[in-house]
Amino acid sequence: MSAELDILIDKKFLLDLPVYQPGKPIEEVQREHKLKAVIKLASNENALGPSPKAVEAIKQSLKTIHRYPDGGAYYLKHRLAKKLGVGASSIILGNGSDELIVLTLRALIGGGDEVIVATPTFLIYEIAARACGATVVSVPLRHLRYDLPAIRRMVTAKTKIIFLANPDNPTGTYVTKEEVDALLDRLPPHVLVYFDEAYFEFVEERNYPNGLHYLARHPVMVTRSFSKAYGLAGLRIGYGVADARLISCLERLREPFNVNLLAQVAALAALDDHRHLAQTRKLVREGKRYLYRKFQELGLRYIPSATNFVLLDVGRDSHAVSQALLKLGVIVRDMTVWKLHQYLRVTIGTRAENERFVKALKKTLLRSSDKE
Amino acid sequence: MSAELDILIDKKFLLDLPVYQPGKPIEEVQREHKLKAVIKLASNENALGPSPKAVEAIKQSLKTIHRYPDGGAYYLKHRLAKKLGVGASSIILGNGSDELIVLTLRALIGGGDEVIVATPTFLIYEIAARACGATVVSVPLRHLRYDLPAIRRMVTAKTKIIFLANPDNPTGTYVTKEEVDALLDRLPPHVLVYFDEAYFEFVEERNYPNGLHYLARHPVMVTRSFSKAYGLAGLRIGYGVADARLISCLERLREPFNVNLLAQVAALAALDDHRHLAQTRKLVREGKRYLYRKFQELGLRYIPSATNFVLLDVGRDSHAVSQALLKLGVIVRDMTVWKLHQYLRVTIGTRAENERFVKALKKTLLRSSDKE
Repeated sequence: MSAELDILIDKKFLLDLPVYQPGKPIEEVQREHKLKAVIKLASNENALGPSPKAVEAIKQSLKTIHRYPDGGAYYLKHRLAKKLGVGASSIILGNGSDELIVLTLRALIGGGDEVIVATPTFLIYEIAARACGATVVSVPLRHLRYDLPAIRRMVTAKTKIIFLANPDNPTGTYVTKEEVDALLDRLPPHVLVYFDEAYFEFVEERNYPNGLHYLARHPVMVTRSFSKAYGLAGLRIGYGVADARLISCLERLREPFNVNLLAQVAALAALDDHRHLAQTRKLVREGKRYLYRKFQELGLRYIPSATNFVLLDVGRDSHAVSQALLKLGVIVRDMTVWKLHQYLRVTIGTRAENERFVKALKKTLLRSSDKE
Repeated sequence: MSAELDILIDKKFLLDLPVYQPGKPIEEVQREHKLKAVIKLASNENALGPSPKAVEAIKQSLKTIHRYPDGGAYYLKHRLAKKLGVGASSIILGNGSDELIVLTLRALIGGGDEVIVATPTFLIYEIAARACGATVVSVPLRHLRYDLPAIRRMVTAKTKIIFLANPDNPTGTYVTKEEVDALLDRLPPHVLVYFDEAYFEFVEERNYPNGLHYLARHPVMVTRSFSKAYGLAGLRIGYGVADARLISCLERLREPFNVNLLAQVAALAALDDHRHLAQTRKLVREGKRYLYRKFQELGLRYIPSATNFVLLDVGRDSHAVSQALLKLGVIVRDMTVWKLHQYLRVTIGTRAENERFVKALKKTLLRSSDKE
């Protein structure tokens, strides 16, 4: 069988692709370390939980899960179109906004085409681009922010897509309206700017540019998610907005029933759950303020964040710190994979979770200082 | 913007791709025709509804839907591995088994490669293959069955995949163990045989070949679904089994969280819901017997089916018949898209639904005979 498969699988580059390493499920950490109460602040999920209106809508739909979902997602698409002020034909729904990254790449990338990806940033851009056969051009962050002038300088005749996580993950920083305006002023029309706005709902900064405002000016794709502020990460649903002709290409590439039935009803309900969204924003705002203060007290540098997580410079090997925190029942993300070896990324939790994290962090850092 | 997009989207063939037309949602038919009670026998869903154990498992998990799913689907993969007698690394889960068609194509197809697809058969093979840039070689059915000798004759050095829906949709027929054995005896090793066994759980015929039995003999992919017998079409979950190296390629191409959290817990519970599965099989067996008898009484030819649906020759334009049935509140699938212009495909319903369908069919055929 081995020889047969070697003949069959001639895309050997597939086996060289990195595999995305998600955060560990809570149960696995509990089992491994024999812990009772574990808190997970590792995947930028909503600490408040899912929108209660979404949960109620799911309960009402449980009797119909033997039916296929509405492949056209009629109700949700029209609700979003109204909310966003665009035509329904300019919207596509994805099995998480991740899927839209892949569909956009599949629609636009041919052999030899280039995509520009910052480094470090959300890892899926590079993995998905390489899986689609694109050449990935990496542009380093500058002071942990996207460097748009440097990105502009890397554009060639072969560039098809620039991925812009705004705000960015894992840094939590954002590019300003002025910076995006300057980029688009000098960008040739054969380059799509992909605004990944998964954390859009958390942003309160005034000079943050809403990607939708560029729709009429330059080819752009804007994606957002129900996984973060709406608390529906487990259901997998996000959406993308672009020119209707580009959306039409993506619609032809997606599977007919890519977005499950419960995700559709939950997202529709969550859009009307203003209370849950307001509470979520408040929790994140207050949680960030609390953590910033505690980090200052501990003499730790952090990166001010426009999202529901904070990147923290622990001033020593962050993998060791994260392992020590794990033993205390606190899961955070060490940034080793992103090559930010002294950084941890911590999701804003509930007040109690934030306090427990700070306590565990103090304990860990004290111990590690004692050893030095 | 138009000119810009023309430059950007150079894969013009995308716009020529057919768009899969799913069956209409019940609510839409009700709205359109102002009907009170509508029955849908159009998408081969489980008339009994979802597995009650699956529904209960979902209820228990609703509090955690703000968390990402387990990207590795640890528990479900190991449960399936045990059930099927294969290693967990030989299994991949998909957002519906549809997704596995696309992932397999993306892993194996390069420019100029050919895939062999019967015509007519499940439409997604051709759409997905063309979207991946494959050349689709069509082989007509023979007496509404896959013609494996003819398929064998179309194999060239460029053939990468043969898609085999077994049992087939929309005909409900299957290829026998003897026929598959003969195909594999003469098939070069560079051709993957893709057994789509979405209706596997309904098959009772003794000479039906279980695709898994060929794993050690030839490169194959076997996919199955939770959408049909398990009643979970709305959740989108299916699985594929193949050599671990091929699975490893597909794993690198999928999105990290392709299968949602509720689908995972529901599928796991459904696998232990032996009562629901037994009742489903009984309902389908008895429903087919009833419909066959009624079709004979009406003098209508039907294709004996190994699945939970029956292809019926109405002896006249089936689109007109399906439209007339629609007005009576009965949704079935006319086979016009498949170019089987005198055929309807009807899903086995509950006893009451089958009776209502037969009544409506009688009425419709009587009226249409009157007109002649």
